[in-house]
Amino acid sequence: LDREAMAWAQARLDQLLKPPGSLGRLEELAVQLAGITGDPLPAIKDKCVIVMAGDHGVVAEGVSAAPQEITYQILPHFLQGTAGIGVLARHVGARLVVVDVGVARPVSFPGVLVRKVRAGTGNIARGPAMSREEALQAIGVGIEVATEEVRKGASLIATGDMGIGNTTPSSAILSAFTGLPAEETVGRGTLVNDTVLQKKREVVARSLAVNRPDPSDPLDVLAKVGGLEIAGLAGVILGAAAHRVPVLLDGFITGAAALVAAGLCPRVRQFLIASHLSQEKAHRHMLRHLGLRPLLDFDLRLGEGTGAALAMPLVEAACKILKEMATFSEARVAAMHEDKLLRS
Amino acid sequence: LDREAMAWAQARLDQLLKPPGSLGRLEELAVQLAGITGDPLPAIKDKCVIVMAGDHGVVAEGVSAAPQEITYQILPHFLQGTAGIGVLARHVGARLVVVDVGVARPVSFPGVLVRKVRAGTGNIARGPAMSREEALQAIGVGIEVATEEVRKGASLIATGDMGIGNTTPSSAILSAFTGLPAEETVGRGTLVNDTVLQKKREVVARSLAVNRPDPSDPLDVLAKVGGLEIAGLAGVILGAAAHRVPVLLDGFITGAAALVAAGLCPRVRQFLIASHLSQEKAHRHMLRHLGLRPLLDFDLRLGEGTGAALAMPLVEAACKILKEMATFSEARVAAMHEDKLLRS
Repeated sequence: LDREAMAWAQARLDQLLKPPGSLGRLEELAVQLAGITGDPLPAIKDKCVIVMAGDHGVVAEGVSAAPQEITYQILPHFLQGTAGIGVLARHVGARLVVVDVGVARPVSFPGVLVRKVRAGTGNIARGPAMSREEALQAIGVGIEVATEEVRKGASLIATGDMGIGNTTPSSAILSAFTGLPAEETVGRGTLVNDTVLQKKREVVARSLAVNRPDPSDPLDVLAKVGGLEIAGLAGVILGAAAHRVPVLLDGFITGAAALVAAGLCPRVRQFLIASHLSQEKAHRHMLRHLGLRPLLDFDLRLGEGTGAALAMPLVEAACKILKEMATFSEARVAAMHEDKLLRS
Repeated sequence: LDREAMAWAQARLDQLLKPPGSLGRLEELAVQLAGITGDPLPAIKDKCVIVMAGDHGVVAEGVSAAPQEITYQILPHFLQGTAGIGVLARHVGARLVVVDVGVARPVSFPGVLVRKVRAGTGNIARGPAMSREEALQAIGVGIEVATEEVRKGASLIATGDMGIGNTTPSSAILSAFTGLPAEETVGRGTLVNDTVLQKKREVVARSLAVNRPDPSDPLDVLAKVGGLEIAGLAGVILGAAAHRVPVLLDGFITGAAALVAAGLCPRVRQFLIASHLSQEKAHRHMLRHLGLRPLLDFDLRLGEGTGAALAMPLVEAACKILKEMATFSEARVAAMHEDKLLRS
């Protein structure tokens, strides 16, 4: 991060028409954005939500309450604005980019980018999700898509996922990197019942025993127990950070992608903003591991980037406070009594 | 609240293209808004932030780190969009209405509504803030302003305060209604140091001993230890609720106004949405007493309606989810396996 831009932003925040620090997390965000962009007065001009879609062989184990074909069927509804992220991306004025990086069925919907690396992953309960080469290729898709959006002008990128069954590999990734047992990392996803929850735990434990992912090799973890959309999202994070563009994480699945990205390049964590704390219980372990504090706590568990989109106006507000508020001296307003403030 | 509209909204939410309940608090908000408006598909067409400004005789006791003239000096900066709420109201696309209900100096700034009931309150450490008639008159100003905004089309009203020294009467109001001692209800306001904090506690305790406000008579509490902008805000809340328009509370001062309004008419609580949990510590007691759960936890302590404005896009998002998402059957997407869900 650009320490000089951050110091400048902080100094200006302290002079604005308000008690110092009284805009709390908005001020913290403004300083982070100055550091990310290198601009002491950062502005969000163009917002973009990137949704990566992929399918999961592990659904054969019965770990999901949703039929696999939903991954495919819902894609046009994103772009028509009749599914969750479609509604929320429009609400916040963000462009929506939907990418097929690994949907099981052939996809040809107007507007959906087809960058399929393979038609769904292998069943991680029995073997690897994909090869190391495929994982790298899917990361490459994410880097390319993010780079293209930055080229079009995106100054804030929200991440979203679509992939029936993808809380299972996300839990496996969390277990692989943190050493936490499946009991701690597996949650109810779409709100599955106790029977399915128990099965999910067994499947995650088995996926780790069968594949033995190496936590010191993030690409190994991703290839063995990850997912194609998770790989794509890790690429989006890496690509955006490389261009100094802030990235809003969504929930549990984009969090798993962030673990992979941060494993490959620890500095990307500084470019991340956690939009919300998911209702998926292990999400808090993920955010702690990433060192991130969520903006919202809304009991969301839909994914698709819905929480990340919802947080976009908050990030914009932080930039506007810094850029558009006047200082006490600019406004010729009487200064605070410094001697009565806690910090003086 | 309209139970039929709420049941209809809930039924639709359960059929939308997402696992049931997966949009968490957005779904709760959507149902509440259906109940408030009586419309099963409520829409926010026009948003309005109402800021009430007033001065406080109690600043003579040295309880604030800001000079009193700021209450007056900052008003034009609200409307020019160069102070906190000016920036955030513009950001969220809300009309900003600024009302002088009790500023100490004569006010004549373009755009500021002058409805002054008196030029600042009396010093509550030595006597009542105002007479019962003045308190009623200031409530009347708030009801009138809210009614006028509803007539212009406002379908969501955010409340904001401006008044140097106004955390002190707000703490006194909280103590009066809850019986909590000043040690529990007084906080650092603009972040005053330990010396000023101790003085604030003594002043609040003295204001209660001197005035003996009757908690069973909310108008008595308001007149004896309240403020003119607090009275005006209580009126805004009552006026908006009477027209079935949802009200976004801001922080500690609008919370004190809500305690008064809820004291006068307990049912108004159902029309309130708590935008955020303030950094002012006793705010959590206030919200608990009102039975409200805040949307944001951003360590804000500026007031002016900044937190309430920040939450407006979240409330709009809730309405849009309900109105704009398609159901599984409308979208011809495969249904969830009900037998695997927790609730079936």
